[in-house]
Amino acid sequence: KLTDDVKEEIKRRILRYGAPQRGCEPRVYTNHVISYDQSKKTPVWVAELITQDTIQGTASRKQSNFMPDPGIPPLFSADNLDYRGSGWSRGHMAPAGDNKFDQKAMDDTFYLSNIVPQDIDNNAGFWNRFEMYCRDLAKRFDSVQVVSGPMVLPSTLNDRGQRVVTHPVIGQNEVAVPTHLYKVILVEADKRPIAIGCFIVPNEPIENKNSLKEFQVTLEEVQKRTGVIFFPELKNSNNLQGLCTVDSCVLGKRHR
Amino acid sequence: KLTDDVKEEIKRRILRYGAPQRGCEPRVYTNHVISYDQSKKTPVWVAELITQDTIQGTASRKQSNFMPDPGIPPLFSADNLDYRGSGWSRGHMAPAGDNKFDQKAMDDTFYLSNIVPQDIDNNAGFWNRFEMYCRDLAKRFDSVQVVSGPMVLPSTLNDRGQRVVTHPVIGQNEVAVPTHLYKVILVEADKRPIAIGCFIVPNEPIENKNSLKEFQVTLEEVQKRTGVIFFPELKNSNNLQGLCTVDSCVLGKRHR
Ligand SMILES: [Mg+2]
Ligand SMILES: [Mg+2]
Repeated sequence: KLTDDVKEEIKRRILRYGAPQRGCEPRVYTNHVISYDQSKKTPVWVAELITQDTIQGTASRKQSNFMPDPGIPPLFSADNLDYRGSGWSRGHMAPAGDNKFDQKAMDDTFYLSNIVPQDIDNNAGFWNRFEMYCRDLAKRFDSVQVVSGPMVLPSTLNDRGQRVVTHPVIGQNEVAVPTHLYKVILVEADKRPIAIGCFIVPNEPIENKNSLKEFQVTLEEVQKRTGVIFFPELKNSNNLQGLCTVDSCVLGKRHR
Repeated sequence: KLTDDVKEEIKRRILRYGAPQRGCEPRVYTNHVISYDQSKKTPVWVAELITQDTIQGTASRKQSNFMPDPGIPPLFSADNLDYRGSGWSRGHMAPAGDNKFDQKAMDDTFYLSNIVPQDIDNNAGFWNRFEMYCRDLAKRFDSVQVVSGPMVLPSTLNDRGQRVVTHPVIGQNEVAVPTHLYKVILVEADKRPIAIGCFIVPNEPIENKNSLKEFQVTLEEVQKRTGVIFFPELKNSNNLQGLCTVDSCVLGKRHR
């Protein structure tokens, strides 16, 4: 049997030139926090808190520009050229519109570290309505914790009958186009969490007749598929109500 | 402008229930260290150090069994059933054969956290010869730092002419089958790093006539594609020689 001293020495030698770095650690911005995927060149999760105070104000997206995140090493960053002519739009995970209270907070959401290649109709349509619904929740509850991100799910079968993951990558930096997007939403009242809702939405045009509830999944499912544990310090998450029980989960009409 | 106090308060509130957890942190085993992908249910990188001392001894793989890693949450773990009947073999990243010096070190390599779905001919053929070559290096140099792992690379084009990533997932846990495997190899003499070699090998049968050198890539390429910075504390890595300059990079004959 190896002694603890020997084990420590082995570990020290294996990591002599530093442990390989994936850059997973949380990155904090003015009003959102992300974990980045240096391989896919997209975020894995983007966390934010919406309140009545963050969605009111004079900040304007006309003042903001999409740009590479200066905090991401260029080797692992997307740039605007990757998106140009790709057929995919630049989709915010933390929405610009959640940050009307502060121009810098809104500007930060335009870093490409907060962006994924999103179907343009989905972005301007269903997903935009979903984001507006989240802001409406902030009027009915004290605060709304939202975690959003991209995911890839298997779709087709191969000739062995196995499920297969298929997704394009765009541009020189091969930014991964997600097959789906998710949101995990926790609403609070009286400073206590009261309900949670988890949704997985395909990254494609979604018709007005589709309701948000059709895309609801369990917390366990979104965790298993994303590989992320959400709200790890939340106690008794099993006792929370479903978001669509305490609120309608009905999206507003399409604007444009 | 928001004050630093306000920014701190915003961050504290966003992360009130803990930052979402991806489980990326290095996990230390007897003679290897990994970072795990909770979404793909495979490692991202597996680091080890091969020396003359680790490859000699009486440890035997007949004593070892493939099993789920007890340190990985079951929600994010592969199990043996995922592989059964899948057509894919269980491919070690840190090889069992590098750990003849200690049965526990060898046993640890059979945790499924060190395993990826590997083409069975690749596993028993080219990749096995590659692993033996790494052990041979340990006889000619003081020590050999090896980092191995799976990757997915785009292959086909879609109807928009964009590159597309395609890979199967196997079993109930949808373990991701990599399209390629990589190794980054740093050899040391007189306790100093002297040469580095990086290789990306397709996860498919490879003929005897193919040489290892055909699969050599730059450090930058393997870093960009995996999203991993290898040996981050290595100074002057640009001054290192190429592995295939200081050694032959010629694999031995196929055994079986
Ligand atoms: Mg949008
Ligand atoms: Mg093997």
